[in-house]
Amino acid sequence: MTNANTLFCLSALNTEYGTCIDSDRLEDWPGLFTEQCTYKITSADNHRRGYAAGVVYADSRAMLQDRVAALREANIYERQTYRHIVGMPALRPGDGILSETPFLVVRTMRDGRMDLFAAGVYLDRVREDGGKLRFAERIVVCDSSRFDTLLAIPL
Amino acid sequence: MTNANTLFCLSALNTEYGTCIDSDRLEDWPGLFTEQCTYKITSADNHRRGYAAGVVYADSRAMLQDRVAALREANIYERQTYRHIVGMPALRPGDGILSETPFLVVRTMRDGRMDLFAAGVYLDRVREDGGKLRFAERIVVCDSSRFDTLLAIPL
Amino acid sequence: MTNANTLFCLSALNTEYGTCIDSDRLEDWPGLFTEQCTYKITSADNHRRGYAAGVVYADSRAMLQDRVAALREANIYERQTYRHIVGMPALRPGDGILSETPFLVVRTMRDGRMDLFAAGVYLDRVREDGGKLRFAERIVVCDSSRFDTLLAIPL
Repeated sequence: MTNANTLFCLSALNTEYGTCIDSDRLEDWPGLFTEQCTYKITSADNHRRGYAAGVVYADSRAMLQDRVAALREANIYERQTYRHIVGMPALRPGDGILSETPFLVVRTMRDGRMDLFAAGVYLDRVREDGGKLRFAERIVVCDSSRFDTLLAIPL
Repeated sequence: MTNANTLFCLSALNTEYGTCIDSDRLEDWPGLFTEQCTYKITSADNHRRGYAAGVVYADSRAMLQDRVAALREANIYERQTYRHIVGMPALRPGDGILSETPFLVVRTMRDGRMDLFAAGVYLDRVREDGGKLRFAERIVVCDSSRFDTLLAIPL
Repeated sequence: MTNANTLFCLSALNTEYGTCIDSDRLEDWPGLFTEQCTYKITSADNHRRGYAAGVVYADSRAMLQDRVAALREANIYERQTYRHIVGMPALRPGDGILSETPFLVVRTMRDGRMDLFAAGVYLDRVREDGGKLRFAERIVVCDSSRFDTLLAIPL
């Protein structure tokens, strides 16, 4: 693939990622990852300091599916929706397809109020798997360290 | 057209759409639609429930032009400006060119205050018309159901 | 270059621009401009009225480097971070590569608070220089005229 094509496919993957969360098709979300994968949410501060921990959600697609089941149980979508606005990915040097993509998430509450919920950058390692690109690793680096409410819906 | 090319042309159309509204070249806005067209603003709630009504703006380019004339009359641009930030479109399956694009609109008031005005997704049906892509249908699905102030400037 | 390719390269340049500011790699920022260049921040009001002045930052890469040195001295990154969310560029007619790109900057304070810091449009003149695209001119036209705090970190 040329760089332009790669960026396009990455960009389409990012849109699909955001749309399936924002449009309440959460069951499609785990399928965007490879079976063995890393999905992690951390803060810029912790990432800069090299803390590996962060708020790890999953190291496999099965764990992501469990998470979706838990969210359905909790009826979280009754109370708020998200909207991911994602910039163009930039390729990073290294082995495989590595990219860096700025993002912003706007939250809309049941009563219509909107706020900036999260902003930051996705650090991704992507690979072809079953004829399409999937995330082998997605590290969500949030600019803010306020994490109390971040745990509800995936970023 | 390949998918990559289609996405590019859609993306360019979306940028042109936002820029002609945000830069007060509103007279160029109706020309981005086909002569017979649907332009509708609705909420995610109403869209999910299948309510066709919503807040319909127009079913023809002529109605969009009338709307622009009314906005000029009302001098609405003296009081606020918009800024559309639009993600990459994702193609949807179906007849013709169907796409889905997340958007965010920031409003800036005369005194400099900014707020999140709207967030949501564009559901579009686009076709070639006179050598360029135009919207045959644009349904603006807003995450929030608060619509009182949404009627001023097109989203 | 075809238009699609040009838009891609512009988009990659924009992402690089935002990321090196937002990820505190500010020293890489001046290298995105040609040695002789214009970098200016102004408001939509002043731009519309044709005021050339605005808040001029630099007319050479060396001045941008000085600015970075001053920011390091002031330790500004201890107190806040930015996140640029940038739309797809639209080509403008004219000599050379001219483009127009909507942007939004979210600011995150040390204590985790986030706000909309700036929104507007980049008006760029770009040219190939040493095998890559660089900004010969970047005029940052902000929707808001509130400029008091805009001087800290580049937009």
